Amino acid sequence: MLDQIRIVLVNTSHPGNIGSAARAMKTMGLSELYLVSPEQFPDPKAEEMASGATDVVANAVVVETLEEAVGDCTLVVGASARSRKIPWPLLAPREMAVKVAGEPVNSHTAIVFGRERSGLTNEELQACHLHIQIPANPDYTSLNVAAAVQIVAYELRIASLNEASYADEWDYRLATAGEMELFFTHLQEVLIELQFLKMNAPRKLMTRLRRFFLRARPDVMEMNILRGILSSVQLIERR
Amino acid sequence: MLDQIRIVLVNTSHPGNIGSAARAMKTMGLSELYLVSPEQFPDPKAEEMASGATDVVANAVVVETLEEAVGDCTLVVGASARSRKIPWPLLAPREMAVKVAGEPVNSHTAIVFGRERSGLTNEELQACHLHIQIPANPDYTSLNVAAAVQIVAYELRIASLNEASYADEWDYRLATAGEMELFFTHLQEVLIELQFLKMNAPRKLMTRLRRFFLRARPDVMEMNILRGILSSVQLIERR
Repeated sequence: MLDQIRIVLVNTSHPGNIGSAARAMKTMGLSELYLVSPEQFPDPKAEEMASGATDVVANAVVVETLEEAVGDCTLVVGASARSRKIPWPLLAPREMAVKVAGEPVNSHTAIVFGRERSGLTNEELQACHLHIQIPANPDYTSLNVAAAVQIVAYELRIASLNEASYADEWDYRLATAGEMELFFTHLQEVLIELQFLKMNAPRKLMTRLRRFFLRARPDVMEMNILRGILSSVQLIERR
Repeated sequence: MLDQIRIVLVNTSHPGNIGSAARAMKTMGLSELYLVSPEQFPDPKAEEMASGATDVVANAVVVETLEEAVGDCTLVVGASARSRKIPWPLLAPREMAVKVAGEPVNSHTAIVFGRERSGLTNEELQACHLHIQIPANPDYTSLNVAAAVQIVAYELRIASLNEASYADEWDYRLATAGEMELFFTHLQEVLIELQFLKMNAPRKLMTRLRRFFLRARPDVMEMNILRGILSSVQLIERR
């Protein structure tokens, strides 16, 4: 999916922003960059800001007009900060990314970002199938163009990933309920030996400790350490 | 929700990145910035890159250590690019944002970003309750620090817009990061007295205990009970 996406920057003033946008793209797995009439390009500042994404900058295609940049694309999306007089299909970046993920295999999507100060013109916006608006702070909507590319590229990457299964990465299995009960018995025994827990004391204390350790869900290694601590307290206590 | 979030930048080399991060924050409605030992700050380059977010830069709090930056926070999240030898709770930025939206009303969350080249140290990562990893292109994970702040702030904003205010009902407030550190110091002291922890033993044991108790997130009542148990072990041990 990410190979079918083109980022288009229109009339960018600062070459540093081209470099930053290229870096943002590459971190998210995008590589196809078109530049419509950039004010200053190529430029060493673009290379510098690209950091390790100089390949994206080097392969950038420079064209004169937006039509040249998007002519072969089947879906053209325009990034817009303003709401328009004539309503246009408008999506949040997340919805747009889901839509792009559902595009046919051989299609090509362009996502178009405007000038640093003034964004895209009405005419340019009207060359797009749909618009996206990044839900920024209404008191300060001024996203840097590379920052906008970063967010949009991030949403595209997330949509392209099936499921990130972070949860499964752990070195030991969690303690079973039975192991937890053995631990609580051991803990209570030690607390009574320490006279920290008095037999006539409110049961609340053990209840709070149960809640705490159940919430924590120790793995078996952690459980071994906790049991080991309890045992070494007993050794000292009984000597 | 966004008022309860602090962005912490550790040891930032380039003042321009501080400005860009401030701008990224403000576009998403975040305003609280802490700087841990920045290499060059204040600096005109920070102002310049902040664009209209110079207020965020002007109000930034500069501290010497990470502990000062997060000590009063009840949830500390570390941004990590690498996977660790000892796994730590790891979320995607989106899951983390949903979690933060569910935090109790009076809590404060810190999100910690590391150095431009090397990120956060293991010790710094082990001061965090959980880690986030931005799902970047495995062939080029090098996100600029301000770009990482932009993505995380964006997810926090989206989560705050969706916030159904299902914050947990709980009877005591959660322990702060500073209270957790005092507990770890006390725990280590007791474990050494018990000779459970040998001075020449691998540091892994304390690391696993840190991870366990940070994951459990004790409230202040539970913290008092745990500290009480430690003290009563010391009484027995020293008699």
